[in-house]
Amino acid sequence: MKHRAVSSQGPTMNASHRTRRFFLAAAAFLALSFTASVPQAQTDPLPSWNEGGAKSSITAFVERVTRQGSADFVPVEQRIATFDNDGTLWTEQPMYVQAAFVFDRATEMVKSNPDLADRQPFKSITAGDRAALAALGEQGLVELVMATHSGMTTADFERTVSDWLETARHPRFNRPYTDLVYQPMVELLAYLRAKGFKTFIVSGGGVEFMRPWTEKAYGIPPEQVVGSSGKTAYRLEGDTPVIDKLPSVEFVDDGPGKPVGINRFIGRRPVFAAGNSDGDLQMLQWTTLNTGPRFALIVHHTDAEREYAYDRQSEVGKLDKALDEAPRRGWLVVDMKKDWKTIYKP
Amino acid sequence: MKHRAVSSQGPTMNASHRTRRFFLAAAAFLALSFTASVPQAQTDPLPSWNEGGAKSSITAFVERVTRQGSADFVPVEQRIATFDNDGTLWTEQPMYVQAAFVFDRATEMVKSNPDLADRQPFKSITAGDRAALAALGEQGLVELVMATHSGMTTADFERTVSDWLETARHPRFNRPYTDLVYQPMVELLAYLRAKGFKTFIVSGGGVEFMRPWTEKAYGIPPEQVVGSSGKTAYRLEGDTPVIDKLPSVEFVDDGPGKPVGINRFIGRRPVFAAGNSDGDLQMLQWTTLNTGPRFALIVHHTDAEREYAYDRQSEVGKLDKALDEAPRRGWLVVDMKKDWKTIYKP
Repeated sequence: MKHRAVSSQGPTMNASHRTRRFFLAAAAFLALSFTASVPQAQTDPLPSWNEGGAKSSITAFVERVTRQGSADFVPVEQRIATFDNDGTLWTEQPMYVQAAFVFDRATEMVKSNPDLADRQPFKSITAGDRAALAALGEQGLVELVMATHSGMTTADFERTVSDWLETARHPRFNRPYTDLVYQPMVELLAYLRAKGFKTFIVSGGGVEFMRPWTEKAYGIPPEQVVGSSGKTAYRLEGDTPVIDKLPSVEFVDDGPGKPVGINRFIGRRPVFAAGNSDGDLQMLQWTTLNTGPRFALIVHHTDAEREYAYDRQSEVGKLDKALDEAPRRGWLVVDMKKDWKTIYKP
Repeated sequence: MKHRAVSSQGPTMNASHRTRRFFLAAAAFLALSFTASVPQAQTDPLPSWNEGGAKSSITAFVERVTRQGSADFVPVEQRIATFDNDGTLWTEQPMYVQAAFVFDRATEMVKSNPDLADRQPFKSITAGDRAALAALGEQGLVELVMATHSGMTTADFERTVSDWLETARHPRFNRPYTDLVYQPMVELLAYLRAKGFKTFIVSGGGVEFMRPWTEKAYGIPPEQVVGSSGKTAYRLEGDTPVIDKLPSVEFVDDGPGKPVGINRFIGRRPVFAAGNSDGDLQMLQWTTLNTGPRFALIVHHTDAEREYAYDRQSEVGKLDKALDEAPRRGWLVVDMKKDWKTIYKP
């Protein structure tokens, strides 16, 4: 309404009115100028990254592909960035978080149905043999998830995951698992989004295990989470529609399954990808072995003191082939100990 | 830089400077006020819809769920809208566009491999029996797509679809198929997006058949297209990664498959859904039989003159159960003839 007052009084305004309006208008004008020009120049988008090669190569790439007029400019709709989850966005040691969930849930199942105690894999679970469980590997775990997670609706499962995350604690850090997301990677996700990228998770983990919490933890909404899944079926129960989780693997989004999952769910090849293990090898190839500017990084776990140190020999998050391939593909290997100022939020 | 000039000269400004600056600042201020207040009030977001019940009930719902402070306010991240494609966003008569593509492609295959001419379904195709092909129904067509579309990479398939759409013409309207998208629905999609909704296609059609053109036709990017799919596999050919299309159905996104597809790809229940056939029945149930404000509409093909008139008996796009269920579910049945001012863009 203010513009009307200005224009209707214009010709008859007296001096004090004019002065007051001048300051009001100038204030609005100044506010506008500051908003438009100041923040970009002064804020470090990656404060938890140490200055140096890794940080600079990320920001140099992002600036290069997002600056209007740059020879390597990538239109905003093509700015797809895909991130592995376990070991890339949050801690995956001493076992995948989802494995801990499976372990606890299977323990609950044995409690309410003691007949299960003599059958594998429940037997090693009852014996408290977490190492045996971890040794199943990602695909084995996905199958165990299927066995322990069917016979309920998707809505029930979502509640189960959310409830578990409220109370479960990491065995070493004694914090909720969702506290153990990597602050430098959370900043990287936010930085990419601020630069027009659409950020996706592409994980071997179960898609329904991740979706209840990824928006809060990473700013990534459910529809941008790609993961492994079990078969499901729709059913109308009276007038209430439900989707049942069936005891059957539908898709394993790991290794060569990651480009397949990216193609199926996203339908475009990423411009930027991040992983930490051989399960990400094909996603990094699919991203970078393409025309135009592309970027891939590997989170290398080198910090036994603040997190964990592991790579070629690890049961969980084995990084061997992808580490060999990194130099000739030009993939950035992030040295957690050297490149990250902070690992977790305080 | 301008704010600096103002503040440094402030105390010593003479009258003519002050007047000039006043007008500059006032102009900026006015521009700001106009930008913020004028456009919403004057633009009809749905100009191709006739005034009346259908249009009003759509806009009333959208205003109700997007107005801050409304009892039915839906936060922006929950504003998921899903749209069927064939018969809901573009013409599906006299056969699904993808069926016409399959027909033409199978004809090409017989030309380059005459041995196929005696085998079904190639036999009825060679005989020019388009009715037999249409009678296969949506699921049969998806399977035929699998049979005719394997043995190539996803990149090759995308080019094949794009090339075909450049030259193929609708048999009655003699226009490219992508010209036969419904202008009122394109406006509805844009209106929802302007109100913070994220719009998705959830179609029985092949996802890789739709993705090459949905962004241009509807403003819906590849990652927001859910559809039927065939199995695929990743492979590194030298240093070139490819994804091969395999001759096997992976997922049929139709009927009860639609809520399953929505759960798998989107991971949230829609607030708004649109369909036109019994293949959309379960999607409309999944959307509306839920707590909170929900909206569903059915495009009823009632206009034989400008498009087609069909419902309960149709081979393609049969609308029978969903039409029976609409009144008791409160679904809006859009009467194409009465409610739409325009069908296609001129």
